Parts: sequence; C-alpha cells; structure tokens
Amino acid sequence: MSDLQTALAEAGVAAVVDGDILAAHSVDHARLVAPGKAAALVRARSTEEVSAVLRVAGERGAPVVPQGARTGLAGSATAVDGAILLDVSPMDSILSLDPVDRIAVCQPGVRNAEISRAAAEHGLRYAPDPGSWETSTIGGNIATAAGGMCCVKYGVTAEYVLGLEVVMASGEVMRCGRRTAKGVAGYDLVRLFCGSEGTLGVITEATVKLSPIPADRLSLAAVFDTTAAAGRAVTAIMASGAQPSLLELIDGVHLRALEDMRPMGLPTDAAALLLVAADTDPAAELIAIERLCESSGASEVFRATDATEADALLESRRAAYHAMERLGTVLVDDVAVPRSRLAEALDGVAAAAERHGVVIGVIAHAGDGNLHPNIVVHPEDEASVAAGRAAFDEILEMTLAMGGTITGEHGVGMLKRDWLAREVDPVNLAVQRRVKEALDPLGILNPGKVLAG
Amino acid sequence: MSDLQTALAEAGVAAVVDGDILAAHSVDHARLVAPGKAAALVRARSTEEVSAVLRVAGERGAPVVPQGARTGLAGSATAVDGAILLDVSPMDSILSLDPVDRIAVCQPGVRNAEISRAAAEHGLRYAPDPGSWETSTIGGNIATAAGGMCCVKYGVTAEYVLGLEVVMASGEVMRCGRRTAKGVAGYDLVRLFCGSEGTLGVITEATVKLSPIPADRLSLAAVFDTTAAAGRAVTAIMASGAQPSLLELIDGVHLRALEDMRPMGLPTDAAALLLVAADTDPAAELIAIERLCESSGASEVFRATDATEADALLESRRAAYHAMERLGTVLVDDVAVPRSRLAEALDGVAAAAERHGVVIGVIAHAGDGNLHPNIVVHPEDEASVAAGRAAFDEILEMTLAMGGTITGEHGVGMLKRDWLAREVDPVNLAVQRRVKEALDPLGILNPGKVLAG
Repeated sequence: MSDLQTALAEAGVAAVVDGDILAAHSVDHARLVAPGKAAALVRARSTEEVSAVLRVAGERGAPVVPQGARTGLAGSATAVDGAILLDVSPMDSILSLDPVDRIAVCQPGVRNAEISRAAAEHGLRYAPDPGSWETSTIGGNIATAAGGMCCVKYGVTAEYVLGLEVVMASGEVMRCGRRTAKGVAGYDLVRLFCGSEGTLGVITEATVKLSPIPADRLSLAAVFDTTAAAGRAVTAIMASGAQPSLLELIDGVHLRALEDMRPMGLPTDAAALLLVAADTDPAAELIAIERLCESSGASEVFRATDATEADALLESRRAAYHAMERLGTVLVDDVAVPRSRLAEALDGVAAAAERHGVVIGVIAHAGDGNLHPNIVVHPEDEASVAAGRAAFDEILEMTLAMGGTITGEHGVGMLKRDWLAREVDPVNLAVQRRVKEALDPLGILNPGKVLAG
Repeated sequence: MSDLQTALAEAGVAAVVDGDILAAHSVDHARLVAPGKAAALVRARSTEEVSAVLRVAGERGAPVVPQGARTGLAGSATAVDGAILLDVSPMDSILSLDPVDRIAVCQPGVRNAEISRAAAEHGLRYAPDPGSWETSTIGGNIATAAGGMCCVKYGVTAEYVLGLEVVMASGEVMRCGRRTAKGVAGYDLVRLFCGSEGTLGVITEATVKLSPIPADRLSLAAVFDTTAAAGRAVTAIMASGAQPSLLELIDGVHLRALEDMRPMGLPTDAAALLLVAADTDPAAELIAIERLCESSGASEVFRATDATEADALLESRRAAYHAMERLGTVLVDDVAVPRSRLAEALDGVAAAAERHGVVIGVIAHAGDGNLHPNIVVHPEDEASVAAGRAAFDEILEMTLAMGGTITGEHGVGMLKRDWLAREVDPVNLAVQRRVKEALDPLGILNPGKVLAG
C-alpha cells in the first residue's frame, strides 16, 4: 500500500493506485493536453467520502482533481502530478423530482439526459443539452458551465442551477442556493461554483430547474454559397426578433466530411448549411426565417415536413464531429464572438487553416456566435501538431481582437489557462486569484486549471 | 470645508456636506431601517470619480455607500456613520445599443424602463421589470438582483447581465463578463457582483441582454373564495407545463384597500384574485389556464378581451402597494417559498396578522412562490411598530421552516442581515465572509449590509 493509500484507508476511503487504471483515468477529451502522473483514484460514493478525501489531501498538501464522465474538452479533469483523482460519478442517483416546484435534486454523477428522461412523464425536461448529454454528468456540466444547442433560446447551464451542496477544500460541507424559484439571500455562491471547474470546491449535489418540454418543433435547412451570406442570414434572423430554438451552422469542410462518411445528399459545394428549429409557433416562425434566409442569399432552403425529417437534419449536425475524427485527431476549439461578426470569424478561421496548411472545419452555435473550429492533426507527425497548435492560437487571437471570448462553453481548464490572462484585464485576474486563495488557501483543489499555477 | 471634503477635493471630486442634503440622501425605501450619520455625498459623473472616491475612502478607512435611485426595500443604500454616500445616478447614459448582438451598454444611473424604451424601435426590450422600473436604475437593479413580474417566464436580473465594469475597493477598475451571447472564461464574477449590494465593488457600467418583445399578450383574472383554492390553481397551472408570462396574486386585504382607494368593482369578499397573462400562443394558453382555475375552485374567471382590458387588470396589481400605503406606513416583506406551498404561506401570514393584531396584505409573484406581505404600521404608535416587527420576524421564521428564503428579490441589506445567518449554514456564511474579505480587505464597501459587521 502506498502511504497515501494508507492515509485514505484510515479515513475510511478505498483508493486505487494501479498504474494502468490511473493512466486511463488521467485524461478527459481534451486532445493534446498532457496529463501529469496521478497518485491515486478514489471512486466516491458519498459526500462523506468526498469530505474525507479533501481532509487527507489537505493534511498532505496533495492536489485533488475532481472528475465525472471526463467528457470535458479543456483538460479540467486531466491529472496533475501526485493528484488524487476524485471520481464522483458513482454518486448517480436522482434524489427527488418535483413537478410542481419544477426542480430535480441530483447527485453529481447523474447523466444529463437521465434528468430529462425522468422529468418527461411530467411534461418537463432539463433544458441544457451539451453534445455529450448522454454520457456527461450533471456535476461536470455545472463545474464546466457546459453549453449546448438549446442556449440560443433557452440559455446556459448557470441559469438552470438553483442550489448546490459543495465540499470545500477544508472538507467542510456547504449548501448554497435554494429550492425556490427565486432567491437573493447573500452572494450568489451557486453561480460562483458554476464553471469553476473543481478549483473552488467539489459539487456533491445539485438542485436544478426543470422546464416544460416545448409542444412542437419544426426545422429547416438553408444552403449558402458564401460564409458572408450565411452570416447575413444569422444576423437577419437574430435582428428580426425571431426566437429560433436552435440555430446551428455546419461549414463546407464538415459537409464534405459528413457526406464522405455516409452519403445522404448534403450540398458538398456549399460554404455553409444553417439548421434552424422553432418551437413556439413553429410553422409561422419558420416561414419568417425561411424568407430571411432567402433574402440573405441562401441558394436553397429545405423545410422538414415532419419530425422524422427534422430529426434527420439534426442527426447530421450531431455526427459532424465524428465525421471529422475520421480525418485525424481533432483538436476542438471553442470561441464566441459577437454574433454580428460570425461571417468574419468563419473567414478568419479559413484563412488560418490555409496559412498553416491544416484542415479546419467549423460547426457553430451560430445564433450565439459560438464557433467550434475543429482542427485536424496527426499526432504521429510533429509538424502537423505544431501547425494545428499555431492555427489554434491564431484563432484565439483573432477572437479576442473581435471582442470575443476564448471559450463560449467548454471552459478554460489546462488548455487555455494562459489565454485567460490575455482575455481579462490584470485587475480581473487578480480578483479571480483572490477568490481562489480565499476558498482554497492551500491550493489543493485542481491546481493549474483555470488559473495558471 | 470638512477634512474629508478637502481630501476629496484634492482628488478632484466635489462633495456635499450639508446636513439636510445628507439626511435626505441617507435612506432608501426600507421603512424602519434607521440610517447612520453620513459624512459626505458625492454625485459621481464618471468611473474616474468613483475610483477617486474609493482611493480617498481607503486611505482614511471611511465607509462608502453606493447609491442609485434609492428605491431599494432592504436598506442596502442606507447611510452608515461616517459614510461617503456615492451616488452614481448622474452617470445615466446608454452608451450603445446593438440590435443584432441584442445588447445594451449602460451607465449605472440609466433607469430600467429607459432601456426598454430605447430598444423598442428594434422590437427588443430589457425584460426584468421590478415594480420601480420607471424610477430605479440599472446599477441598483443589478446590485440588488431585483426581480419583477416577468420572472415567472423570463427569469431574473442575473440572467440578463453579460458584462460589468466595477470599481474595486482599491479604486482599481475591473471589467468582467463579455459582449458575446455565451462565455465561460474564468470565474463568473458578473454573477458574483449581481446582488452583492455594493459590498464587493461599485458598478460603473453594465452590458445587458435585450430580448424580443413578445408579440401578443392576453390576461385573465380568477376569483377565489379560499387561499387553498388559489394555491391549488397556481400549483395546477405550474404543474401543467403552462408558461404564463405573469402569474400574480392579490389577496383580500389588498382587494379591499384597492376598492377603497378607487372603486372599480373588485371582488372585495374574495380571499384572493389571480392575474394571469400569456404571450406565446395566448388564446390557447389562457383557455387551458382558465380551465385549471375553474377545476381548482375559482368562483369566477374573467377573460380580458383586448389589450386595454388586460392593462386595466394589471393596473390594479401595480396600484396594490399604494392602496396599502393609505392605511399607514407599509413595511414590505419579501419571502419566497417552494411554489407548492403558496397557500400554506398565505395562511401563515394571515395567522401572524391575527396573532399580532396588525393588518397584513399579501401580493405575490405567485408563479414563483414569491410573497410580499405588506405590513401596515403606525410609526407614531410604538406598540404598532413592535407588533409589525414581531409579525415580520414570524413570517421569516415560517418561510425558513417551509424550505423558503428570507428574500426572493429585494435583497438582504441592513433589514435582514441577521436573518441571513439563519437561512444559510455556518460554512456558507464563512465562505461569504472570505469572499468579502478577499475583495474588500479594509471593509470600506457598504459595511454592515448583507453580512452583519
């Protein structure tokens, strides 16, 4: 038994120290973020166990890396040297679900989609829908403030979290937030923990807001020969007061990759395809949106005539990332620009791809100005990796110059911690550091994530 | 010139020290919160002036009380002894408004309703609508995380603030948040400042989210002979998946006070009136809601047939507080309970009124379980004030026992700072204190508000 394992055992917590298991648990989905060498893995089954781990870690000054399904894309769940990997995914029960108060109380390991499945019988759902919703956990969703396609109309994860139980660095257990629809008693600690990526505390329970499942939903797809025209359409739609429930963009690189993977008649010559859904008064909304697409220069617009057709359209969007993975290792970027500058951002990404000789496809939550440039690299070829990284950096630089942010929904993690200092001013960074030091004075909670060490 | 006034003048800031003016600026709308004796009033015209005031205050250890329109109801803008009252209401320009990006950048002194008026020509509005929207400022709205009637469908202030410029206790200027629709770079400082009531920094600019003005809107009023039936109706409506854009309750005490003030045929024998509006597919939505009111035991349901009639219904809701003011000084309470317990809360308030021999009427954002018990006292009669306070405390106690919160939307201020420690656990309170100390180590920012000194 390792010394650490013994200390954990004495605190009543079983730890795994097998090298292969640790290695397997040391990464999330952030490709190219190199993990450190973890010391132990604890699969926590209760708040008490999480608390015990943090007390032991505090005594020994050992770093703790909280983990869920490790589907994150920024390396916030990646191991650091000497870390205790604290996997809370075994805490996976929905503790209660109240259709009148429209809340669900969940342990952190509950999968996102499970909440909506449990709520469906009451006509309710948990709205935030990150791409990983079938596999990612609510604890991880909250810790990374994960986004999704629903955001353009229904908002982001932080808006759906009412209350949290958090184990602090000291091992003390704190409850914050509420079960009521509204509440403003004291500082908004719930929101402070949303997106803090396990650097301020470990989420062990979440009270989330449920909302009605939209009654109806229709989709259309619009084909554009230029990014400028696609950008104009997004601008026109959002400026019209329309409220699409989904407004996604698939660029030509992805369209060709998708069609290569599985021919389904996608317009491979197009610069971009916009997918739009509406769910309030969908027929009328989509007619208005269709007109805006046409007047913005769409070469073709297809309206899904039923739910099956609409689902098929969305399938291609969901498969876009996998289609790119067939070309190599995909370095997923995540930037957001003011939505009025979407076309400009698309062109900037294309220019970066050309300049560095790498393939970059973009899928975007276009209505939010949130782009995912998917950069294809070949890890066995150093030059390809270097070119990919150079393009990655250039895209971040371009985004900041456009008044955008280095991360729209994936988080900072290890991947972008050095970029954070370029986005925010020095006073902001100092305030963030003071908050971190106030809540984690020993610096044991996920060190090196969000803020550089 | 006072010593402080000289120091401020040397920093380039004009201060007023006239006793009468200071006294007039030393209170907000929290009746019965006794102000301290302020030392100076600065009407700031720029971020630089705010910064200068904080530097002078820091050097002298003088408390600073940030103020806007002072329409708050919890005493967060109330003077403390020796304070510099820092009025930012002269900073009242809308700096930019972008209909495509759907954002407005405002100085803190811009009145809430002005933003919606400026956005209206683009079919947009600033959704949060506190009762004071014509007079209260966006800076104060954000600092107190003010609510309103829209919340039941459209959410709270914190969900509409994208970015802030804040002057920190040190006088340093920080920008946080973003102009993009989404963004998760670093800790969510924007949300930390929302509702922090000027205790962590002074808001000098806000970037807020605009949203489409709902196309159509219809209302109904339902009369209930018992609070239990009204509570059942609210429960039934919210459990049905309906999304009313407004779901307000006026109790019998208010109905009678309103009818006394201006006869308009309100049902003065009723226990409660529910006002409901819908704006998605309003005709269909209201038919469904009408049926739910009837099956829950409404004695009558009136449907407004046009916008004028709907507005008239809402007028009575807006006038409710003024009608109560004719009976004496109104001590406004603000509690939120899980919405399933609304009827129980109404009965608890009525019992408290009877037990303490005071008049208490309740208006409620019923769909959110957010109640405003309006307690009538007569300041010249000590016994009446004591009875009012006792009822006030009893209502807070009841709320906490029901799993509710001591403040749904008005904030903690001086009024409820001792109650905060009863709502949250000791670890939570310690975390709040650590955040406060980290950002305001000298304790000069609005001391004694939110957290007890």
